[in-house]
Amino acid sequence: MDATMLIGFCAGLLTTVSFLPQVIRTLRTRSAHDFSALMLILLFAGLTLWFVYGALRDDAAIVATNGFTAALVAVIGATKMRSG
Amino acid sequence: MDATMLIGFCAGLLTTVSFLPQVIRTLRTRSAHDFSALMLILLFAGLTLWFVYGALRDDAAIVATNGFTAALVAVIGATKMRSG
Repeated sequence: MDATMLIGFCAGLLTTVSFLPQVIRTLRTRSAHDFSALMLILLFAGLTLWFVYGALRDDAAIVATNGFTAALVAVIGATKMRSG
Repeated sequence: MDATMLIGFCAGLLTTVSFLPQVIRTLRTRSAHDFSALMLILLFAGLTLWFVYGALRDDAAIVATNGFTAALVAVIGATKMRSG
C-alpha cells in the first residue's frame, strides 16, 4: 500500500467511525434537537445510494462502511423523531 | 454515464449537500449542544484527509466536495466551542 492509499484508507476510517461517538452521545442524552431533519434525510439517502453503488460495483468496503454509517444516522433520526 | 456512475454521482451530491441545511440551522439557532465534539473532530480530520487524498490523486471532485464539507463541519465545531 503506497502513501496515497494509506491516506485514503485513514480518511475513510475517520469519516465512518466519527458517527460512533455521536450515536453514543445521542442515545445517552436522548436529544437530537440541534440536528437538521433535512440534513439527516439527505445524508441517509446519500449513504444508502453509496451502499447501492458499492453493491453494483462489488465493492465490499463501500457497502460495509456506508451501510454501517447509514444505520448510525438512522438512530439519530429516530431519536429526533421521538424527541423533536 | 452509465446507471452505476449516475448512482455514485447522486450519492456524492447528497452526502455533500446534506451539511448545508445543517449549517443553516446551526447558524440560526447558534446551538450545537447535541453534537459530539469527538464526532466533529474525527469527521473534520477525515474530510481533511479525503481532501489531501484527492489532491495527491489529482481528483478535483474529491478535493472540492470534501474541502467544502470540511468547511461546513468547521462552522458547526466553532458554534459548539462558543455555545457548548
